[in-house]
Amino acid sequence: MKIIVDAMGGDFAPKAAVEGAFLAMREFGVETVLVGDKREIETCIKQIDPAGNKADKGHLLYDIVHTTQAVTMEDDPARVIREKKDSSLVVGLTLLRDGFGDAFVSAGNTGALLSGATLITKRIRGIRRAALSPVIPNKEGGALLVDCGANAECTPEYLMQFAFMGSYYVNRMLNIEKPRIGLLNNGTEAGKGTQLQRDTYELLQAAHEAGKLNFIGNVEARSVLLGGVDVVVTDGFTGNVLLKGIEGTAMFLMGELKPIFKRSAKTKVAALLVRSGLMGLKAKLDVSEHGGTALLGITKPVIKAHGNSDAKTMRSAIRQARELAQSGIIEDITANIDAIKLKQTDGE
Amino acid sequence: MKIIVDAMGGDFAPKAAVEGAFLAMREFGVETVLVGDKREIETCIKQIDPAGNKADKGHLLYDIVHTTQAVTMEDDPARVIREKKDSSLVVGLTLLRDGFGDAFVSAGNTGALLSGATLITKRIRGIRRAALSPVIPNKEGGALLVDCGANAECTPEYLMQFAFMGSYYVNRMLNIEKPRIGLLNNGTEAGKGTQLQRDTYELLQAAHEAGKLNFIGNVEARSVLLGGVDVVVTDGFTGNVLLKGIEGTAMFLMGELKPIFKRSAKTKVAALLVRSGLMGLKAKLDVSEHGGTALLGITKPVIKAHGNSDAKTMRSAIRQARELAQSGIIEDITANIDAIKLKQTDGE
Repeated sequence: MKIIVDAMGGDFAPKAAVEGAFLAMREFGVETVLVGDKREIETCIKQIDPAGNKADKGHLLYDIVHTTQAVTMEDDPARVIREKKDSSLVVGLTLLRDGFGDAFVSAGNTGALLSGATLITKRIRGIRRAALSPVIPNKEGGALLVDCGANAECTPEYLMQFAFMGSYYVNRMLNIEKPRIGLLNNGTEAGKGTQLQRDTYELLQAAHEAGKLNFIGNVEARSVLLGGVDVVVTDGFTGNVLLKGIEGTAMFLMGELKPIFKRSAKTKVAALLVRSGLMGLKAKLDVSEHGGTALLGITKPVIKAHGNSDAKTMRSAIRQARELAQSGIIEDITANIDAIKLKQTDGE
Repeated sequence: MKIIVDAMGGDFAPKAAVEGAFLAMREFGVETVLVGDKREIETCIKQIDPAGNKADKGHLLYDIVHTTQAVTMEDDPARVIREKKDSSLVVGLTLLRDGFGDAFVSAGNTGALLSGATLITKRIRGIRRAALSPVIPNKEGGALLVDCGANAECTPEYLMQFAFMGSYYVNRMLNIEKPRIGLLNNGTEAGKGTQLQRDTYELLQAAHEAGKLNFIGNVEARSVLLGGVDVVVTDGFTGNVLLKGIEGTAMFLMGELKPIFKRSAKTKVAALLVRSGLMGLKAKLDVSEHGGTALLGITKPVIKAHGNSDAKTMRSAIRQARELAQSGIIEDITANIDAIKLKQTDGE
């Protein structure tokens, strides 16, 4: 199993990416291809193993593919592919397409990764749009949110495809036999929402009645946190607002807890007494434990790691990429594509 | 100042509504009109003052208006006005319209309250849609979210009107001189979002350039919690998802804290040591401190209290209704209506 890593993407590149790759190679026995500025990557490697990495080189297998450009967060996603052909992102995706690795991990510009994956690695035939689908930690463990921002404007067919892809993902990656699929809405009753939700509801209900999907109906945003649903289907605009609202609330509340524990000598004692519990909660919410966000609908496994990923998070994202490559989800989608696209829009 | 109270609305009606009205009368010196089943209301009053309420009756001023029907959460909002003419909700709004009180408070069916307020009390001339606008507690104190669920489908003009109404509300109710207006979006750059956000952005920017609104551009959902914005403008579908996502996250996190403090004798000691701090945080998040949600755009003040309101929450909602009635917000909207509607859609 060989994972291609965008060494130049993310706030702490290339250090976090290279260190993360080394952690992953040691812990999970994967091989990696580090794509980026060769000199910078080698400097990072020297820091990891000042003795010249000889001890490691014996069993760690990695290649460096040198590139001269880096995609920044300010780059226009639509122009990156044409104008930064020798960037780590474009070269990495091209290596993936051409079979020089089994999956691609990047903490770089999300929009550029999306359009790069769509244009270079391509969508699975019949899939209309790729979707970003993070696992949101919740009361029951977690729920998959599809789409969380790849597609601001969606059709009912896109959402139906998100539902199928999310179902396969949760089934294979989280080992849930019949994932409960919910349509994110402003109420649980049928008929709620805008035309998009009403039309999508009918498609999902039909797939449910045909025995192809375990659709449980409309769900409210509360359920994403409190449980009862495994895959939450929504357009990328709403999904993005919800995701950032959840992140903001968690940051706000955790921030409010700090001064409560720092108020006095007494409360500082309290902090020590519940330290392990609070650390456990922090770990549960911590994105670095979960890795990154899968880009579903692409012909090859692509993982978007958070822009502020550290080495540990990159390590988790590489592990997730390996699991995704082994999972068989892409094969599931390909094998069932006739059931998960609408006949009338068949011409691509 | 006389507040009309829907005694039959909410999960704990009529007890919570009647007790809340008595708390408000004692604490804030308001008069109330209690609308609902006279016998049930009187039973509640007897429980509040078993001696026959004589001591209070001297200075507490309230009327009871008897009604024979109650609106349930299952009632179809569109049919309530026609089919439950003698419900506390319909009678209460009619009393408000006819000047028998200065504001109306209900913890009942939100949809029925919305359509009742629109059909009976009417929208302000020129306002296209009324909006539900709760204050979300955050790092800076709070931000107003307009709309949080009254209108799933919106036009740019609706959103522009929400911005103006929200600005007046925050100015008058939260004493902020030039409220910062943000458009909820999936990124801060101009051009983000769907067509609705892009078109609304232009309207708000034009209002800003004309010096009529302090528009600060697109904001992400994180800002609602972390601050930097006073009024967050969005369609009711997205606003509802965000509101319930925030509520769910807060419930999830507070729920996760409990077992951490209950784990052992040691952690129970810790709980005692930080008790007051945690209570303070709980109060900050507690809707019962904040009262209810204003329905903006109606000719008279209407407050929607949360369905699970207890007496204390009803009391706060009545206080908020009094403040809203005294604020001059409706006068602000009426006086500026020419600036806050689009010329081309002027015919109503």
